[in-house]
Amino acid sequence: MRPALLAILLIAQPALAGFDGVWLDLTHSFNRAAIYWPTADSFEKTVVAEGETDKGFYYSAYNFRAAEHGGTHVDAPIHFARGMRSVGQIPLEQLIGPGVVIDIRPQAEENRNYQATVEDIKAWESEHGPLPEGAIVLFNTGSSDLWPDKERYMGTAERGADAVAKLRFPGIHPNAARFLANERNIKAVGLDTPSIDYGGSTLFETHQILFKNNIPGIENVANLNALPAKGFEVIGLPMKIQGGSGAPLRIVAFLPNVR
Amino acid sequence: MRPALLAILLIAQPALAGFDGVWLDLTHSFNRAAIYWPTADSFEKTVVAEGETDKGFYYSAYNFRAAEHGGTHVDAPIHFARGMRSVGQIPLEQLIGPGVVIDIRPQAEENRNYQATVEDIKAWESEHGPLPEGAIVLFNTGSSDLWPDKERYMGTAERGADAVAKLRFPGIHPNAARFLANERNIKAVGLDTPSIDYGGSTLFETHQILFKNNIPGIENVANLNALPAKGFEVIGLPMKIQGGSGAPLRIVAFLPNVR
Repeated sequence: MRPALLAILLIAQPALAGFDGVWLDLTHSFNRAAIYWPTADSFEKTVVAEGETDKGFYYSAYNFRAAEHGGTHVDAPIHFARGMRSVGQIPLEQLIGPGVVIDIRPQAEENRNYQATVEDIKAWESEHGPLPEGAIVLFNTGSSDLWPDKERYMGTAERGADAVAKLRFPGIHPNAARFLANERNIKAVGLDTPSIDYGGSTLFETHQILFKNNIPGIENVANLNALPAKGFEVIGLPMKIQGGSGAPLRIVAFLPNVR
Repeated sequence: MRPALLAILLIAQPALAGFDGVWLDLTHSFNRAAIYWPTADSFEKTVVAEGETDKGFYYSAYNFRAAEHGGTHVDAPIHFARGMRSVGQIPLEQLIGPGVVIDIRPQAEENRNYQATVEDIKAWESEHGPLPEGAIVLFNTGSSDLWPDKERYMGTAERGADAVAKLRFPGIHPNAARFLANERNIKAVGLDTPSIDYGGSTLFETHQILFKNNIPGIENVANLNALPAKGFEVIGLPMKIQGGSGAPLRIVAFLPNVR
């Protein structure tokens, strides 16, 4: 057998034994500390039952409530674009695809209101080749390490409308959003901050540009430091809220074993 | 190249192009009709914003609330077993694995309080071989087609404590649960009814047996009729509720392309 074919066989074999590789969770836990927009309802879990029942077995159950847009979640296009897809209408395949991580930690360290640029994307491509078709493009701003310290993560721990002007965190520049929507063929974007628009945004142009193109945005992603720049698959499965403008998302990466 | 190797190569190749195959959603939507236990809070979504803002762009956002145990969801072991895993503690790999469907539609059609038996499992194995290591074992009772008609799906559309005695739907017999926990090596069980214990259960023995062994149960699964008996992967990603006794689960099947 030619070495090239043997190599393909060895790389491909894990698929035969199910998904043989490493799974990595990119999701923050939903708890009292989970970060929400200053004006949004936070996550709350309340006890329904917890303890021994009179029938002699242990039983625990809880209720929960939250805004759609907090913790690790997906923004559906309808969040900022009338008539576009709600979270229940996003095809499964749109949040499953080859992942890439564009590292903008140095830029974000220098300026917490940094916006990822077209040049950042092109620099990644110079090093790693063109963005894969149907890529899920993740920006690593280094913010995940600051979770759940609201002041450091998003610029303020205050709540309410007055706190919004104090928000300060990295995002994706509208020009970069336009470039991804028009010049590349991607499935979704994501990052490790509360919003794909930077903390200082008032018009949320990156949301508007991507969502008009039915490209969802994934926010408050965790654990990006653990990923390579490419060579992994992303699977994001949102809670299937009918008509939802977004939803809690369990997002994971699959790194195939290459043995 | 020997034909056997060629065959492996052809089967395995899709893994190289990401997950090349068919994804199938096994999840019911969360909406007002989603089915909950008669004593549990149902799913509710409320409008926060919906329409044009004064800045000239469309914006929609919602809050939601629910009990953990309703709609398509996973029961974490701690739901019925003190000290065992909460939903946030279930390893990712436990809800990802080779799927099998054990078809008990004829039995359930005859008796809506049918409980899947050890014999049902052994009959499947006679036809398809041993349950795969780490299987996610799904029982198809034919109930998904009755969703969201509460009366037909679970025996009653009434709410409150008095309705519990009227519940009527298929489940998994405690002996079958014991067999799966002790005699086979499985990751999780699931089915297309509100509970892994049948509608008439008062002691929830199947829950107790499986959960003491840290084997989660997946309930209200959709779309099992569309699956083969084996040869697919299940990926279930629950909402990551810290300390939760269960959570909404987005569960999907992956059927690899064999070309």
